[in-house]
Amino acid sequence: MLTFFHCPHTRSSSIHYLLEELGVAYETEIIDIHAQGGASESYRTVQPHKKVPAIRHATAKGDVVVTERAAITLYLADAFPRAGLAPALDDPRRGPYLTSVVYVDAVADPCLVAHLNQWQYEGKGAAFGTFADMVANLERTLTTHAYAVGDRFTAADTQWGVMLYWAMDVMGLFQDKPIFRAYLNRLANRPAFQRFAKAMAAAA
Amino acid sequence: MLTFFHCPHTRSSSIHYLLEELGVAYETEIIDIHAQGGASESYRTVQPHKKVPAIRHATAKGDVVVTERAAITLYLADAFPRAGLAPALDDPRRGPYLTSVVYVDAVADPCLVAHLNQWQYEGKGAAFGTFADMVANLERTLTTHAYAVGDRFTAADTQWGVMLYWAMDVMGLFQDKPIFRAYLNRLANRPAFQRFAKAMAAAA
Repeated sequence: MLTFFHCPHTRSSSIHYLLEELGVAYETEIIDIHAQGGASESYRTVQPHKKVPAIRHATAKGDVVVTERAAITLYLADAFPRAGLAPALDDPRRGPYLTSVVYVDAVADPCLVAHLNQWQYEGKGAAFGTFADMVANLERTLTTHAYAVGDRFTAADTQWGVMLYWAMDVMGLFQDKPIFRAYLNRLANRPAFQRFAKAMAAAA
Repeated sequence: MLTFFHCPHTRSSSIHYLLEELGVAYETEIIDIHAQGGASESYRTVQPHKKVPAIRHATAKGDVVVTERAAITLYLADAFPRAGLAPALDDPRRGPYLTSVVYVDAVADPCLVAHLNQWQYEGKGAAFGTFADMVANLERTLTTHAYAVGDRFTAADTQWGVMLYWAMDVMGLFQDKPIFRAYLNRLANRPAFQRFAKAMAAAA
């Protein structure tokens, strides 16, 4: 039994897409993070900042709660290996896969927020670096390979895909370059993406 | 063969400590990120933002480059299981372990930078949340358990430990509470921490 703590049209969307790619059964619990004062205090036992996403996985060894998108992504892709979304521990793509998934949360996301708010933060000690370096990095990656980690779709693409869709098509923060468009089209052709997009539209 | 791309007294310190805990042989390549214009452009093939840390691991299946502290931490702890620093894939502590390691990079670190710079960012869409929630989360964690993930030391503690040492003892951003002090003392008693601290002092 898998419970997905979700709020439509927020950062939990990328885990929603991942769950569709995994093809596993799950229950969704809607958390209203936009309520006055945020989600209820009781939710803090699940997510210490009262944010989404979070998951609770009932396993034979007990309930497992996982928060932080990158952690959830890595956890679920390993927990449901049949979907083939995570390179195995001894696969040389494992390192780049971990890097790519962590990078979305630790670099790309704060770069986008800083760019959106026009923060001037060079020389201020931020780990996440510049927006330009981040865009160049994704462009370089997609110039040499079809997906975030080599030429096979992985769970990293669920995180990159939803972020790029939001940044380029919703917010206009990424220039609509053919290489980014081709990548998004590659994802949009996947049945799981179409299920995700349909559910997202229904929740509008 | 393991190469560690490092710059003393920067964020790569926490990977330095992790390597000492793993007890594996490694070579250090110093990257001068403080040079005029940053590290050399050629280093971008290793780290796309010319930052540290990064590692290159020569394996039987080829060279693996890993960047982003959380990704490096997860990679190395799995790649060298003899040190026992990572719960196994089927261990119920695996999810909280992934959460804890990712949280340091995606939440705690940007919260500290924002706090240090006195950024006013509530309502600006940042994923990393508030400094107060982050401090409360660590305090709650250490109130119930001796380490970041339960009562056994894991690789997560190498990342929390170095960050807390920097935030509390170097920068004074954390209040010097007994619960934080006891945790740092627990780490400082470890031979690997002492080797790390000695090397760090020598690089001053």
